[in-house]
Amino acid sequence: MTSSENTGTRIALALAGVGKIARDQHIPSCENGSDFVIAAAISRNGKIDSAENFENFDVFLETRQDIRAIALCTPPDVRFAMAKKAIANGLDVLMEKPPAATIGEAQALAELARDAGVTLFATWHSRFANGVEPARQWLLDKTITRIEITWKEDVRRWHPGQAWIWEAGGFGVFDPGINALSILTAIIPGQTIVEKAALSFPANRQQPIAASLTMRSAAGAPIKAEFDWRQEGPQTWDIVVETDQGTLRLAKGGAELYINETLTVEGPDREYARIYTRFAELVRSRESDVDFQPLRLVADAFLTAERHEVEAFIE
Amino acid sequence: MTSSENTGTRIALALAGVGKIARDQHIPSCENGSDFVIAAAISRNGKIDSAENFENFDVFLETRQDIRAIALCTPPDVRFAMAKKAIANGLDVLMEKPPAATIGEAQALAELARDAGVTLFATWHSRFANGVEPARQWLLDKTITRIEITWKEDVRRWHPGQAWIWEAGGFGVFDPGINALSILTAIIPGQTIVEKAALSFPANRQQPIAASLTMRSAAGAPIKAEFDWRQEGPQTWDIVVETDQGTLRLAKGGAELYINETLTVEGPDREYARIYTRFAELVRSRESDVDFQPLRLVADAFLTAERHEVEAFIE
Repeated sequence: MTSSENTGTRIALALAGVGKIARDQHIPSCENGSDFVIAAAISRNGKIDSAENFENFDVFLETRQDIRAIALCTPPDVRFAMAKKAIANGLDVLMEKPPAATIGEAQALAELARDAGVTLFATWHSRFANGVEPARQWLLDKTITRIEITWKEDVRRWHPGQAWIWEAGGFGVFDPGINALSILTAIIPGQTIVEKAALSFPANRQQPIAASLTMRSAAGAPIKAEFDWRQEGPQTWDIVVETDQGTLRLAKGGAELYINETLTVEGPDREYARIYTRFAELVRSRESDVDFQPLRLVADAFLTAERHEVEAFIE
Repeated sequence: MTSSENTGTRIALALAGVGKIARDQHIPSCENGSDFVIAAAISRNGKIDSAENFENFDVFLETRQDIRAIALCTPPDVRFAMAKKAIANGLDVLMEKPPAATIGEAQALAELARDAGVTLFATWHSRFANGVEPARQWLLDKTITRIEITWKEDVRRWHPGQAWIWEAGGFGVFDPGINALSILTAIIPGQTIVEKAALSFPANRQQPIAASLTMRSAAGAPIKAEFDWRQEGPQTWDIVVETDQGTLRLAKGGAELYINETLTVEGPDREYARIYTRFAELVRSRESDVDFQPLRLVADAFLTAERHEVEAFIE
């Protein structure tokens, strides 16, 4: 087989932003999957050897009009302008989380994509963790009485040197916390409401290092979420859902599902493999998948929050 | 004519929250208009002599099932629960601004109203100021090059003793600022994007006393907004729109419209009279009018803001 035959049934994909998440997840998921081949990369800092590499997004758009799909893995601050250009050029677009820096940007992109007739996929990778879809299904015939989210990790370990997460618009502890909110809103129906929020800002930072949210599900169940970036030792990414018929626990960020503390779902990480399978389905059926509820919950938390100043954070 | 004949063609209305805004605006607008008669009032602090008065919302709902429309003029913190109950009981609902404390609440109410088939009218009174609709029309065939919003007033003069505006969820200077945003989003089409925000928090308060927003219209025009609650002397509520065909200025919160500094629209305040005319139209045509873009802009400002601490505010 020649190389062109090899890639004949695959969708040619451009990837913008060749950084850590692209190398760790997007590139191997495309290579190991059967739906996409990365034909071009746009990045100022990285290259993909097997693809045509561009430093300038406009030059890419002019040069490779044969490529009709793009994955945006750049930091949030430049993602909006790129997404607008990609949609305006008729490309189908996959966006890393968070899909936008504001609700306004997110809504604008959804409207532009709809008007242009392109596929827009606002991904939330944690929704594709092994336990999440089984958890949603298990909850369908239960009455939820209480939900408790504990998302506690060591920022020094997971975000070394990432200054932008502490800047205005960087979301702080909501950068991981939004993963929990993306799972929460995938496993329960309706609009979840933020009733109260308390945010802890280090004296020397613009973004919170910890957050405590009091929420309520559309069906009326109380939901507590504790996000903390100061967790040394064991790390916790757990969601516990108490129901009238027992307790469900998603552990390790959704990778493991326990029913009444019996492990019922686990397995190797396939989040990004599933994301690309889903993107291929969306592209082929000309549909979009845009759900901004996780971002909306973060905005509502900032809007209603009590602010507390805590000890300065020195990395 | 008997009293019942007198009110025969009027819609019986309940009013919840007999406070300053109800006495100053809602009650006289209903009395001077021809569409509504206030048949019941629900309030812990005030009464309306010509109506049946209730202290308890549930007792009102049980007792006066003949009343099919309600105006909610209570503070935002209790408005959501009341609105949900009113919608669940099939009432048509008018809400004072802001319609909700969070985007989630607002979206939930819109969905509940749609599902229940009732009219929901999320009012923004400044949109009904004399100059706003003429401004929107004048701009239709112009290209906007720049917008500048200046909303500077003395909080001691306009909000004496209102502690809740400084609490979490009280919005601070966005309480008046959202009026400017409601006009902005009424006179230009599409999603306005918050690009940058700076919020000034008094050392002893949870909410900002000043805000500076850098925004962009859907069509790409730069928009600056300066909100400040520390303005003594002359008060300013101005929106200046520069276009390819001259400059428009809305002054006095939208009450006056200047085209190239020539006063072209003015007149007595009819904001709430127009609100009740519109509510009657919506009720009779079984439609809703819910636009949360002003609230969304405030949430996006909080989400992306740089925070600055300023001098403590002592009333």
